[in-house]
Amino acid sequence: MAIKTPDWVKHAVFYQIYPDAFARKVPPHQKWLLDVPLEDWDAPPTYQGYKGGNLWGVIDKLDYLQDLGVTALYFTPIFRSASNHRYHTHDYYGIDPLLGDREAFDLLLKAAHEKGFKVVLDGVFNHASRGFFFFNDILENGPNSPWLDWFKIQGWPLSAYDGSLPANYVSWIDYRALPQFNHDNPAVREYIMQVGEYWLHQGIDGWRLDVPDCVKADGFWEEFRERVKGVNPEAYIVGEIAFDATQWLDGKQFDGVMNYPFGRLTAAFIIGDRVDKDIIPHFYEPYEPLDAPGYAKGIEELLARHPWEIQLTQLNLLDSHDTSRFLSIAKGDRTSAKLGALLLFTFPGTPNIFYGDEIGIEGGHEPDCRKGFPAEEKWDSEALAYYKQLIRIRKKYRALCTGDYQTLYAQEKVYVFARISEEEALIIAVNNGQEKAEINLSELEKVPSLLTIKPNNMIHGEGSSNWDNAQLQLIIPPRCGLILAS
Amino acid sequence: MAIKTPDWVKHAVFYQIYPDAFARKVPPHQKWLLDVPLEDWDAPPTYQGYKGGNLWGVIDKLDYLQDLGVTALYFTPIFRSASNHRYHTHDYYGIDPLLGDREAFDLLLKAAHEKGFKVVLDGVFNHASRGFFFFNDILENGPNSPWLDWFKIQGWPLSAYDGSLPANYVSWIDYRALPQFNHDNPAVREYIMQVGEYWLHQGIDGWRLDVPDCVKADGFWEEFRERVKGVNPEAYIVGEIAFDATQWLDGKQFDGVMNYPFGRLTAAFIIGDRVDKDIIPHFYEPYEPLDAPGYAKGIEELLARHPWEIQLTQLNLLDSHDTSRFLSIAKGDRTSAKLGALLLFTFPGTPNIFYGDEIGIEGGHEPDCRKGFPAEEKWDSEALAYYKQLIRIRKKYRALCTGDYQTLYAQEKVYVFARISEEEALIIAVNNGQEKAEINLSELEKVPSLLTIKPNNMIHGEGSSNWDNAQLQLIIPPRCGLILAS
Repeated sequence: MAIKTPDWVKHAVFYQIYPDAFARKVPPHQKWLLDVPLEDWDAPPTYQGYKGGNLWGVIDKLDYLQDLGVTALYFTPIFRSASNHRYHTHDYYGIDPLLGDREAFDLLLKAAHEKGFKVVLDGVFNHASRGFFFFNDILENGPNSPWLDWFKIQGWPLSAYDGSLPANYVSWIDYRALPQFNHDNPAVREYIMQVGEYWLHQGIDGWRLDVPDCVKADGFWEEFRERVKGVNPEAYIVGEIAFDATQWLDGKQFDGVMNYPFGRLTAAFIIGDRVDKDIIPHFYEPYEPLDAPGYAKGIEELLARHPWEIQLTQLNLLDSHDTSRFLSIAKGDRTSAKLGALLLFTFPGTPNIFYGDEIGIEGGHEPDCRKGFPAEEKWDSEALAYYKQLIRIRKKYRALCTGDYQTLYAQEKVYVFARISEEEALIIAVNNGQEKAEINLSELEKVPSLLTIKPNNMIHGEGSSNWDNAQLQLIIPPRCGLILAS
Repeated sequence: MAIKTPDWVKHAVFYQIYPDAFARKVPPHQKWLLDVPLEDWDAPPTYQGYKGGNLWGVIDKLDYLQDLGVTALYFTPIFRSASNHRYHTHDYYGIDPLLGDREAFDLLLKAAHEKGFKVVLDGVFNHASRGFFFFNDILENGPNSPWLDWFKIQGWPLSAYDGSLPANYVSWIDYRALPQFNHDNPAVREYIMQVGEYWLHQGIDGWRLDVPDCVKADGFWEEFRERVKGVNPEAYIVGEIAFDATQWLDGKQFDGVMNYPFGRLTAAFIIGDRVDKDIIPHFYEPYEPLDAPGYAKGIEELLARHPWEIQLTQLNLLDSHDTSRFLSIAKGDRTSAKLGALLLFTFPGTPNIFYGDEIGIEGGHEPDCRKGFPAEEKWDSEALAYYKQLIRIRKKYRALCTGDYQTLYAQEKVYVFARISEEEALIIAVNNGQEKAEINLSELEKVPSLLTIKPNNMIHGEGSSNWDNAQLQLIIPPRCGLILAS
């Protein structure tokens, strides 16, 4: 059976919202609940403090997001959870009270849909939290709990909170705060499937799945796909798998994964040895700077790894709530951030902007990367304009979304590739070197459709282009990029 | 302002359901969730084991309850809770998964209402549980939790589960599993008020309140009454206050309380020194057997203690989930159980049958009193017929519900009283002695309305009656009771 992934994802521009730190608003009718002591919005984020961002705040920010041009919102978890990142799920059916309430969620979803945004939620189905009811019942009732088989208990009494004793149950990376589900229990499986279906029925457009590679039960994600697509065939399912995800990208499980390999390659090329070694994301280790040939090789291997239909719905990213900010990895070098974004918005797969990258938020390892979205006077307005332009281009040229990918040139610090569909062709060139690049793209006869169209309209960037029959000459200023369209 | 309590309560017969042990049914569509390992239904109940009774089971039992004749159901807690009695609330808005789900509750409420039952739920608003989200967040995030002020924290780190350390937060009777709310926090107060309103909006007919005397915040229960009655002016609010409840029965707080003083007096009179001292409920200590004059004195003091409008909506009981069964306190003496029931069903206030008393379930201190409701072949069918008759009488004669109460005779082991309304009068006589009683009720001219009506129709019990002008002669066999109606 042919692999099928959602068309809307291929044409989307995602924006990742970390709800605790994105926007805060306390409506009068929720003042009683939400006026609580919080960490200062602009103070460095901490592991356990809350900034109090909420869904009411997001509703107010939808105009900003629409103006930015993004078309899909991926929310890190919003379900009730005793952690500011909310990956410690306490209740899969409830909105976290600090984020507002169910009314806030319903209003947000409705408003987002009315403005044309898709909405993807984060599902943490490998593990729950110590407060999650079925685990809490075991903690409270010991061997008498009817829910024993929901987790993998190894001894009594449970030492869930006493760090001086070994945690005597299976937990995610042996972190006792996150007891791992026993996915071999059919009840657990059905429970998770029903959660998956439930929120689709409530109108969300997809699931981002936390550490799905840790779930070992046979056919688990195949069933999840069937159940979710059974509710909405166009639902997007994207896994968080930072390394080789081939096993899960067979078309029977996920539509894509968070494309950390793309982020890793792009950092290695664009940031190169400008890198701040102290905050290299562990997903990127071992970090080795790449020149253009190395980048081209990595990118082509990556593109060859998965079916094209899947490539088009990979969730591409430069950074996330789990990594240092790209800008900070580049020690604040704004040019690197720009060139990285240029590659992000022109690569096959859907680009995902981690909230605030578009206005130049900096941040090291988590939780530092999860800073409160700053007031407008602190924005990097040049970065914002740049992002807006790239988003407009991404949305205007379908070839950037679904066109073929062809490396055209990769030498030293200069990398050039094309995105080509039947109707249009674009050439994207990046000169990451300190010198002006004057290059001749020959052998273009290998790309006949490109030669037919001969894109020569510089819609982005600086430099010049000149077609001479089957040859294209490009002049690109140092550390610049450009896009030629037809 | 005149005190007002719900009329329906005055005419109701309550049945108290302990959901874990009352009835169990697993519908096919919930098999995936509910087929779990459980304590054997007929095994002695334990503190931490579950029998798995559920709401689906209760739905199936409604015909039985209708046939029994009761008109109102009081459920001990049904909200999500990691304890078989479910007084450790984990979520005030969710039905416990072992009890079924929200669909089960909605169907139960609908079916119960269609059959004419009122439904009262148990609200545990003094304390929550360690798994309750707002406490769990404090446990997980320590001083960074936004919800610190929801409880009364006294030190860090919280020793919620480590019994070797003092529990460094305020909990109910210093039991660390039940952290006590900080009711002085307006958010906590509002949260509880909204829970109270919410379930009324869902259609329940009232609240039984767990240990409400432990809530010290000014005007808390006054506001709760206003909020609840604001949703449904006919809602019933009954507190669990085992001792003198005068302070809460001023008409501004509760419509009544669980009338343990009535149960205590009735046990002391009817069971007397047949008592099993090992299982006397602590509510009844110090236990002293009473003869008829002592009982009359106690009952009259009890009736004088609260306004009459409140008396009529007291929740009278012989036992509950918190006490040994009346039958067992009487060492299995069925005659005591019958005479106790006779007094229960003829006393002002609404009678409350603890599930299974009507079929002769025995049981000592909790949890033993919470046995699985047995299969029909184990029922005491004589007890059941007796209960049915008394319930029929209670419902037929409005004077038993709202008529005046008048002691007519109290000597040695014989106690006689009347319930008198404008239309009818009943005389209830109990001879708790081992000898036949032949008594003359003179001085009846003090009760002119009784003399007008002269009830002489023996609708229940054994013995004989004979009116001679203003005198009534009664002959009552040993350890018997009777009811004369007009």
